[in-house]
Amino acid sequence: MRLATMTAREYEDWVGGGSAVAILPTGAFEQHGPHLPLGTDAILSTAVATAVAEQTGAKVLEPFTLGYKSQQRSGGGNHLPGTLSLDADALIAQARQLIRGLLAQGVRHVVVLNGHYENTQFLYEGADLALRDLGLAPGAEQSVMLLSYWDYVSAPTLEVVYPDGFPGWDVEHGGVLETALLLHLRPELVHMDRAVSHPPAAPHRFDRLPVVPERTPETGCLSAPDGASAEKGELLFTQTVADLAAELRTELGL
Amino acid sequence: MRLATMTAREYEDWVGGGSAVAILPTGAFEQHGPHLPLGTDAILSTAVATAVAEQTGAKVLEPFTLGYKSQQRSGGGNHLPGTLSLDADALIAQARQLIRGLLAQGVRHVVVLNGHYENTQFLYEGADLALRDLGLAPGAEQSVMLLSYWDYVSAPTLEVVYPDGFPGWDVEHGGVLETALLLHLRPELVHMDRAVSHPPAAPHRFDRLPVVPERTPETGCLSAPDGASAEKGELLFTQTVADLAAELRTELGL
Amino acid sequence: MRLATMTAREYEDWVGGGSAVAILPTGAFEQHGPHLPLGTDAILSTAVATAVAEQTGAKVLEPFTLGYKSQQRSGGGNHLPGTLSLDADALIAQARQLIRGLLAQGVRHVVVLNGHYENTQFLYEGADLALRDLGLAPGAEQSVMLLSYWDYVSAPTLEVVYPDGFPGWDVEHGGVLETALLLHLRPELVHMDRAVSHPPAAPHRFDRLPVVPERTPETGCLSAPDGASAEKGELLFTQTVADLAAELRTELGL
Amino acid sequence: MRLATMTAREYEDWVGGGSAVAILPTGAFEQHGPHLPLGTDAILSTAVATAVAEQTGAKVLEPFTLGYKSQQRSGGGNHLPGTLSLDADALIAQARQLIRGLLAQGVRHVVVLNGHYENTQFLYEGADLALRDLGLAPGAEQSVMLLSYWDYVSAPTLEVVYPDGFPGWDVEHGGVLETALLLHLRPELVHMDRAVSHPPAAPHRFDRLPVVPERTPETGCLSAPDGASAEKGELLFTQTVADLAAELRTELGL
Amino acid sequence: MRLATMTAREYEDWVGGGSAVAILPTGAFEQHGPHLPLGTDAILSTAVATAVAEQTGAKVLEPFTLGYKSQQRSGGGNHLPGTLSLDADALIAQARQLIRGLLAQGVRHVVVLNGHYENTQFLYEGADLALRDLGLAPGAEQSVMLLSYWDYVSAPTLEVVYPDGFPGWDVEHGGVLETALLLHLRPELVHMDRAVSHPPAAPHRFDRLPVVPERTPETGCLSAPDGASAEKGELLFTQTVADLAAELRTELGL
Amino acid sequence: MRLATMTAREYEDWVGGGSAVAILPTGAFEQHGPHLPLGTDAILSTAVATAVAEQTGAKVLEPFTLGYKSQQRSGGGNHLPGTLSLDADALIAQARQLIRGLLAQGVRHVVVLNGHYENTQFLYEGADLALRDLGLAPGAEQSVMLLSYWDYVSAPTLEVVYPDGFPGWDVEHGGVLETALLLHLRPELVHMDRAVSHPPAAPHRFDRLPVVPERTPETGCLSAPDGASAEKGELLFTQTVADLAAELRTELGL
Repeated sequence: MRLATMTAREYEDWVGGGSAVAILPTGAFEQHGPHLPLGTDAILSTAVATAVAEQTGAKVLEPFTLGYKSQQRSGGGNHLPGTLSLDADALIAQARQLIRGLLAQGVRHVVVLNGHYENTQFLYEGADLALRDLGLAPGAEQSVMLLSYWDYVSAPTLEVVYPDGFPGWDVEHGGVLETALLLHLRPELVHMDRAVSHPPAAPHRFDRLPVVPERTPETGCLSAPDGASAEKGELLFTQTVADLAAELRTELGL
Repeated sequence: MRLATMTAREYEDWVGGGSAVAILPTGAFEQHGPHLPLGTDAILSTAVATAVAEQTGAKVLEPFTLGYKSQQRSGGGNHLPGTLSLDADALIAQARQLIRGLLAQGVRHVVVLNGHYENTQFLYEGADLALRDLGLAPGAEQSVMLLSYWDYVSAPTLEVVYPDGFPGWDVEHGGVLETALLLHLRPELVHMDRAVSHPPAAPHRFDRLPVVPERTPETGCLSAPDGASAEKGELLFTQTVADLAAELRTELGL
Repeated sequence: MRLATMTAREYEDWVGGGSAVAILPTGAFEQHGPHLPLGTDAILSTAVATAVAEQTGAKVLEPFTLGYKSQQRSGGGNHLPGTLSLDADALIAQARQLIRGLLAQGVRHVVVLNGHYENTQFLYEGADLALRDLGLAPGAEQSVMLLSYWDYVSAPTLEVVYPDGFPGWDVEHGGVLETALLLHLRPELVHMDRAVSHPPAAPHRFDRLPVVPERTPETGCLSAPDGASAEKGELLFTQTVADLAAELRTELGL
Repeated sequence: MRLATMTAREYEDWVGGGSAVAILPTGAFEQHGPHLPLGTDAILSTAVATAVAEQTGAKVLEPFTLGYKSQQRSGGGNHLPGTLSLDADALIAQARQLIRGLLAQGVRHVVVLNGHYENTQFLYEGADLALRDLGLAPGAEQSVMLLSYWDYVSAPTLEVVYPDGFPGWDVEHGGVLETALLLHLRPELVHMDRAVSHPPAAPHRFDRLPVVPERTPETGCLSAPDGASAEKGELLFTQTVADLAAELRTELGL
Repeated sequence: MRLATMTAREYEDWVGGGSAVAILPTGAFEQHGPHLPLGTDAILSTAVATAVAEQTGAKVLEPFTLGYKSQQRSGGGNHLPGTLSLDADALIAQARQLIRGLLAQGVRHVVVLNGHYENTQFLYEGADLALRDLGLAPGAEQSVMLLSYWDYVSAPTLEVVYPDGFPGWDVEHGGVLETALLLHLRPELVHMDRAVSHPPAAPHRFDRLPVVPERTPETGCLSAPDGASAEKGELLFTQTVADLAAELRTELGL
Repeated sequence: MRLATMTAREYEDWVGGGSAVAILPTGAFEQHGPHLPLGTDAILSTAVATAVAEQTGAKVLEPFTLGYKSQQRSGGGNHLPGTLSLDADALIAQARQLIRGLLAQGVRHVVVLNGHYENTQFLYEGADLALRDLGLAPGAEQSVMLLSYWDYVSAPTLEVVYPDGFPGWDVEHGGVLETALLLHLRPELVHMDRAVSHPPAAPHRFDRLPVVPERTPETGCLSAPDGASAEKGELLFTQTVADLAAELRTELGL
């Protein structure tokens, strides 16, 4: 599944087949409250990518473990201890150069599977510039897909996972989704005994910089992980992976 | 209202007062369907900014009339004739340098009032780098606010403007909101006779690059402007401006 | 005249005709003495561009309202309140990307009509890099013209406008030319009652950085607007526009 | 050991102690002959880093899994399938921003433990720029150490590992060192049955670009892994880690 | 005179005196007609700098021998064989970093003595950014002066050198000034027998890109070197150097 | 020999012959102990390049007189007075643009002849990017060679020059090699009376930043020039030049 464990010959054969799909998981190094590890985003996106690869025949690249700056409205803010981020230029350049390299060597499709909200637009720019570098325009056989795994959580799953109502992805940082998934996938990394119950962060319709620190709950989570469980995590994971795999099969003709 | 029409002395006096708030409207040069002009985004954000300034005592900068690349899911795509965009680096640099200059000269708060969805993250990066350049950290008296005007459209307004249900901001490109606002503000620029009714663009949970052109409706709009009227535009404008002005007053202590 | 007010279809038809000429006015946000507004440069270049477009069938882009740093010998200096400038990189990138986009979409000629002295070389670099990006070399049908409008003021006009002798463009900042033109075009923005008569700034054959502030006259003007009038402005405007239009017709075969 | 598995609070406590040492393993995605995986460099540097951390109390960052371009004299060349590299700018920016972030949050020392020869100078530049950003000059308490693990292989170890004489690090790419280490650490990733015996690549005193492909042995290895064994790997690993740990203790006063 | 021939200790003593002035000659690698060498600009600016240093006690840096792109109106154009130029970014970065280094080490004033017209604005930007890097603002004791040596040719000299009237610096490329100076300074590099008499290039008030090659005279000179002589060169050199030295003494208090 | 002294026509003829080889000497502005000048590296590489050119028919470009930062292990460190360096970006850009220009104009081979250890990887990156810009891939007729002259000092020469054993190139900074060469080539620039005998700098297997100043010998040399003589310099020069010329003839088919 992992390209980094293949030999060059195996890689060459895989690419030479003409239908190679590489999945790039992306995350961040970011505080995730008192109960989740700093690497949560890349751990989750890599796990999802691996499972999707198993179902689709795609291969998985090593994850981007550094992401764009945590923003207060979506990640608590870049000022918090334990959050180490890239500026836009480094993230764009890294994505551009890796995607360009993959496509130039013949990989048919690169799927960027994002696990850190703030990355999206910079990964998009990296992909766009890679395509420009290679002169790939509409109609080209090669392509890049860019998505975030939580967009594949279905409505029925949401109802089960959030029985009191889904508060919205905007406050899902260190909340039920990430906690449940990690309880399912890497329970030894979750400290539910340190989890704190608190109301979600008050929503704002604007970004303010420098951030006003007290607007982030003391835990650093934008919503509490109340009710997160390994069972919910398994449901989330299984359903999301299945839908993502189906999307890739349909979209890329796998 | 417009800083560009003030003299240097007037500017100096304004800044010297210690509570100067400058609003930067941002837009794009982007196709907006058969009935709206290419400059729609900056025209609208500038009009909103000007009205907000009237109600708050803020001043308005000349708009950014070029924006980040139009994306297929939010603007139809950057491949369409009439869409001329900046790469991330130019937009970030321009925002960074202008914001840095304003704050360095003593402007208390810079409000970036965005009118083109795809700009947001790059304006954020520009603001963040400007603050880093100046060493402004949490607790500083100066600040940047970044917002998009449509986030201030209220639920009651949505009910009036979209009596059959609000389709979501994700397909609002050349649709009812922008059309109504422009019918109210600059009716001579709207060609309702060329407007085409069609179902909204099918939603996708991923970006694909290069774009698949046929996924953008032929009009270039992501939803049709059916039912847009100057009256709805007036309602949208009045309510949004009032709420935005109130937000600024509260947030910035005006 | 203004491309931003056209629809995408109108733009497409215009470009499709094969002889589309787009004029890009460029200016700055810069102190212009006690009597002229900060946006003078872009206001003037946009007015000239619009009039030239009327006479030639060209279309006008939204102006660049931010320019390169004001230099003491040509604009009084970048240290003065009210002057907000771009570094070279941002101005070059913005020009490069816009010009590249226009030519890539089929615009035949882009005319950069400059109204701020310090911009010239950076606009040139932007144009040069855009052509390199597109592989346009001598012999190509598409081109970029770069000019500053004051280079089209004729000798007879100078004699009328400066009856006591033309002091040279190097001290024309907030002086007779700009004042007269604005009196003709936007009299409500000119405060002749605040204008101060003083000798021109002493010439220097070198730039010194950091600037020596006292070398800029207290007004911020490099020469006084003594004798500026709307009539002179009309003469300047009419003659310059006519000669510029003639130049474009000849050079570009309009 | 792995910082990514710590919570923000644990990270904060660790940094707050005032003597936090973070080790950054760096590698590449690069062909390593028919018998070793593409991710060899980062796998090895991460394993060494982890063992050194165990002996010194340091913590380990997630590795850089992409490196600078493979060069023909040290890695076979960047033209080979399976080699995906970064340009200098992306590698420098990534190192600079991560190191700056760590030091700014209070990490006392950052040890960059390199596993891909070509990375060195670009990591150095990243570190140097990070220190400049933070104003850290000689005498500062915080520091960056940059080293490559093979420089800690001792002469006695070399004699055991290369009984016929050490050919030099310059042809160690996919050779005995890397093969033996991986046989010790991750035997399931090594395909000794595919290893090919061949003389080392002929040495050159110059780089030539574009590369002359036939100067790289067909295997992509610069020397054959003849005689590599898990036992040699264990010796290499144990000795190198011990000496590296001793170096860190001495140099950083751990 | 030449800093590059001093030892580190001598350099340190010189800087430590508190009044060190370093002159940086800048030029280009550019065609200069059939009779002058490609390195003309740096040869001349270095010779002038050395003579000025002799008269003022300043020291001379190694010249910048590559310059910004030759422009058709001032240098014939960048398309001509033998012209090898830098983009703006490289020239700006080089100037910025060298000037920053000199000032950071204690050099009191850096005089950039330019010999290639097109360099000016990019050297200015480099100097400006170096000052920003160091936080040097108006009132600082350290400074940068930027000038082009031909601006110090006096009116009486012009009358002697151009008895039929001075055609203007804009067409001085490979003309009388440069030819005479080189005849005086390095006669062995001048091929007067290959010089061609022709009328000056027709003036244009605009830049056009891509250039129209036939607008540059076939020689590549913008005006002919008719009448150039070593005697005129000596006059030009002696007078210019004297005036430049006087300017430095006055301006920098030497 | 020197391209800068040729006329454009001579350059054109040279390039037009189809087998033009240009040698680019590169150096630094760097302290070289109490007895050698700051410009040592470029003086030596230029002298070597010129002699090689004489023996091969190649031509010599003006040297890069500024180099990458002096590193403590190879040059004493960038903190020492008299050392003025470029960041990676400026050096890469300058090399890229010059090499691109030479190859684009038809020069067959560019030989970068380095005289400053720390430059190597950045010159490599510049060359690599130039080739990418031009689309030159393996098999192309044009090429870049990159080498450092000391790699051509032969074993027999080393035995003569270092009768007590060769300490290694890593401590050759201001030592016997450079001193002897300069005594041979430019004796007037060497101050043997100021040379200090001291043991070589203690070796380190790591870089530490910020540097620990006391690890550089007080002289700034990494080894003493004991025993350097003009005779040894002549031997070094003659042998190295001969072998380098032979290498170029063989490799480039001269």
